[in-house]
Amino acid sequence: MKAVILLSGGLDSSTVLYKALADGCEGYAISFDYQQRHRKELHSAREVAKLAGVVEHQIVKFDLTQWGGSALTDDSIDLPQERSLEEMSENIPITYVPARNTIFLSFALSYAETIAAQRVYIGVNALDYSGYPDCRLDYIQAMQDVFRLGTKQGREGNPIQIVTPLIDLKKTQIIQLGNRLGVPWELTWSCYTGGDLACGVCDSCRLRLAAFNELGLTDPVKYEFRSKVKG
Amino acid sequence: MKAVILLSGGLDSSTVLYKALADGCEGYAISFDYQQRHRKELHSAREVAKLAGVVEHQIVKFDLTQWGGSALTDDSIDLPQERSLEEMSENIPITYVPARNTIFLSFALSYAETIAAQRVYIGVNALDYSGYPDCRLDYIQAMQDVFRLGTKQGREGNPIQIVTPLIDLKKTQIIQLGNRLGVPWELTWSCYTGGDLACGVCDSCRLRLAAFNELGLTDPVKYEFRSKVKG
Repeated sequence: MKAVILLSGGLDSSTVLYKALADGCEGYAISFDYQQRHRKELHSAREVAKLAGVVEHQIVKFDLTQWGGSALTDDSIDLPQERSLEEMSENIPITYVPARNTIFLSFALSYAETIAAQRVYIGVNALDYSGYPDCRLDYIQAMQDVFRLGTKQGREGNPIQIVTPLIDLKKTQIIQLGNRLGVPWELTWSCYTGGDLACGVCDSCRLRLAAFNELGLTDPVKYEFRSKVKG
Repeated sequence: MKAVILLSGGLDSSTVLYKALADGCEGYAISFDYQQRHRKELHSAREVAKLAGVVEHQIVKFDLTQWGGSALTDDSIDLPQERSLEEMSENIPITYVPARNTIFLSFALSYAETIAAQRVYIGVNALDYSGYPDCRLDYIQAMQDVFRLGTKQGREGNPIQIVTPLIDLKKTQIIQLGNRLGVPWELTWSCYTGGDLACGVCDSCRLRLAAFNELGLTDPVKYEFRSKVKG
């Protein structure tokens, strides 16, 4: 069965790619160059996709800095740094990119219907970063209706299914799943900055490091500052 | 009130732009260069947006020829020609672009949330071309749920509303509405080909010409072949 996998090159989406392949799917990866601050993640996406052995990898280009609205698409907005996990979960953070997952899933849907895929895998995760509105189950269910009603394939009674293997997992559980699946963590990139090394202090780095720490494991990615994050 | 209007530069979306302004909205137009066969329509979109007096006009660029799947995004698929209105309404036509309106509405949502707009206007129309799955009311309602659940603004109880002024109108009624609003038909472009003149024989030209004919009006756009279309 063909599956389209949304692949950013980070820890979550790389795990999802390996999960899709373990589920017996032929993998068609899709990544997005939207002029994000951390476009460097696309290099990781390419490496991970190649190593995992996908059939095809589409990189879709557009420019969300046209209107910005997020610390990831507007250089004049600073990235939050050194926040505790508690602070991260309080509000929708400034790293929220308006409608990003909706845009990503729309392209994935277009690609999936064109190649007659049955599934679209996405690494949304409602527990950590629960601040992001477009990572929650009710949102995914609404998109599932769109997949069903907005396509020829769906109208013909064969809708493309959205698969969310990580939705109920904590970051530590995602790492455990990835370890079982053999995800090459050293190739992945989660940091929100585009630096040579992962910064270690943005929300994404801290969440990742905290989870490796909690498991007593060492993240093989090189960090500028390997912080000990308190919950 | 700010409104984002999806503007292709054709007859329907130009009418919708004029309707949004007549409704008292400040207009923020958004158009898409997706490497469509008839990219020429973007010239019309620019002219119409300028004449109507929008506050801003965003042109979003991406490339749907990456995977094709439609006569509008794959030059190796021929455009249907000289079909009767009855033939057009039989099946989902090959000019259907997988998930196109979902992609368009996703970008419109991102833009709308960033500028704190209240509405997104789209010229979908369920009567003519009822073959397109992503022009029907149940699909629009599913996207409305996505607008509500997938954004910060929606989660905060202030969802952006999708407005579809043409959904129940026939093409003749759209032209009558546009005439009342003063839409400059001569600037619009509906033809699926990218030629110097509108072809007059593709589905889009024939539907448009048939409606002007039925009203006893002359379409001011210049045609290669001004066909008389039978219903």
